[in-house]
Amino acid sequence: MKTKKTFGEFALISEIKKSFVKAGGRLKVAIGDDTAVFEEKKGRLLLSTTDMMVEGVHFTAAQNPFKVGQKAIASNVSDIASMGGTPLYGLVSAGFRKNVSRGYVNELLKGIKKEASKYNVGIIGGDTVSSQVNIINIALLGEVTGKKYALRSRAGEGDFILVTGTLGNGAAALLAGDIYVPKIQISFAKEAVKAGIINGMIDVSDGLSSELHHLAEESKLGAFIDIKAIPLSALTEKIAAKKKKDAYTLALNGGEDYELLFTVAPKNLRKILKMGKGKTKLSVLGVMREKKLGIKYSDFNGELKILPRRGYDHFA
Amino acid sequence: MKTKKTFGEFALISEIKKSFVKAGGRLKVAIGDDTAVFEEKKGRLLLSTTDMMVEGVHFTAAQNPFKVGQKAIASNVSDIASMGGTPLYGLVSAGFRKNVSRGYVNELLKGIKKEASKYNVGIIGGDTVSSQVNIINIALLGEVTGKKYALRSRAGEGDFILVTGTLGNGAAALLAGDIYVPKIQISFAKEAVKAGIINGMIDVSDGLSSELHHLAEESKLGAFIDIKAIPLSALTEKIAAKKKKDAYTLALNGGEDYELLFTVAPKNLRKILKMGKGKTKLSVLGVMREKKLGIKYSDFNGELKILPRRGYDHFA
Repeated sequence: MKTKKTFGEFALISEIKKSFVKAGGRLKVAIGDDTAVFEEKKGRLLLSTTDMMVEGVHFTAAQNPFKVGQKAIASNVSDIASMGGTPLYGLVSAGFRKNVSRGYVNELLKGIKKEASKYNVGIIGGDTVSSQVNIINIALLGEVTGKKYALRSRAGEGDFILVTGTLGNGAAALLAGDIYVPKIQISFAKEAVKAGIINGMIDVSDGLSSELHHLAEESKLGAFIDIKAIPLSALTEKIAAKKKKDAYTLALNGGEDYELLFTVAPKNLRKILKMGKGKTKLSVLGVMREKKLGIKYSDFNGELKILPRRGYDHFA
Repeated sequence: MKTKKTFGEFALISEIKKSFVKAGGRLKVAIGDDTAVFEEKKGRLLLSTTDMMVEGVHFTAAQNPFKVGQKAIASNVSDIASMGGTPLYGLVSAGFRKNVSRGYVNELLKGIKKEASKYNVGIIGGDTVSSQVNIINIALLGEVTGKKYALRSRAGEGDFILVTGTLGNGAAALLAGDIYVPKIQISFAKEAVKAGIINGMIDVSDGLSSELHHLAEESKLGAFIDIKAIPLSALTEKIAAKKKKDAYTLALNGGEDYELLFTVAPKNLRKILKMGKGKTKLSVLGVMREKKLGIKYSDFNGELKILPRRGYDHFA
């Protein structure tokens, strides 16, 4: 349910969360995690999530519409992945400016179609309207077969904290005026959740620092990570150097990487590393700790510091 | 899947329809009807629909945000009703301008909550973003228990054409600078579909003329209606007179009434009228005919004329 959020957006979401339904009966998970979860029949749980992208906020008119379409699907698939689910069906709502070119619309639709096909998502419905600004909203349904799904709130004290892939790609692409189309770790997430060795999980849409805060808060724990352990891609380091930015800051606060941040009990560390071997890059970032120890990181001098929850506020 | 559509929007939708998945396997109905239909377990079918409303196009900043929120839910519930289904869960995506007031957001959310509660819809997820213009997108899931659901394409030759309630309310409210919040005929639709006496059905979101064209085309038939049979509300007649508009034109082309337009076999006419008695106003408008006879109406002089598919084009 998340493109990169602003503080104002966080405040609105918390207001919406207060207003609406609570889990109970068929509804296993309501607002507050990456997807909602409800039971359709015994042993089959449906997941649902939605994500809105607005031109001028989440993408620009100058960016490649094919990639904008791809990202719209990928960011929703990422929410399904972070529950350990399989994406099924998508509903696409699009608002287009009156003067939009047929070519732009076609490229955007092609990007949606390409990415939907990559993850076996069937687009089964939609709405197209005219708008003062281009908008794409995707609502995605997925499922969990079996009863296991991952939640943000299930990290345990002493769990190792891991992340898939490399971070900073979203921020680096933005610096280069491009859009990063992530490869969602859907198969890895399904396999690991099915094996029952993932405790807490969230996808990295708002930046590592913000997501670690979510994971720790929802699990009522503290956390410690080693900044040197954060995996950076070569491209991120290159663009950061060129633009005179700190690559680790991009990884911590940049967001839109859509990798998976998750925790495993110490006894399952070997198992999960074996599962990723040769297929999914995994990095151990730190450990979950008691809540009173706070959320901290060790910097390059080994000094322990408080990890701020970064972000920026479109509404301010 | 429809707020009132423009011709440009129709063209885009037909492009999207070409691109995406076709029904098959679990997916019983794909893009093209009021909702998609897929099977979750034997005998339980899930319905899904989505609807986007953009400020400046579908509502204005001056209109009551509570009613805007109500209408956002009601228009989606109407799509579920037109299949004979029961609404279940909603996903709300909202984009707000940076300078939006907290009061505006609260009223809009209250309207969504009030209307969701009226139809037993649980809001289970959402996304809130900042935007250059206020936007609401609702994705709604519903279900059909039993295997019966209504489609646009099942009208039969010789069927009577009926409509619930009165028409012209949406257009009249618009003329008065207001928003019409429809009462969706969900119980009537469920009962009638369950009884197996509805052949083709669609909701009147784009105006009677346009919806009759949809119904006839999807059923590969022609249609004839008597313009004098169109039910107008007293309020519509009053506002039409005040604004010097023709009330029947409002009803035919205005849209946003969210009543149900449906067909029944002649042998079931008495049964359906009995079902509506005392609860749901029903009017018989005409009959479905051979395709080659076209889509026609008899005017106030009894003259038979071609019924044009009206609309207006935001994209032109």
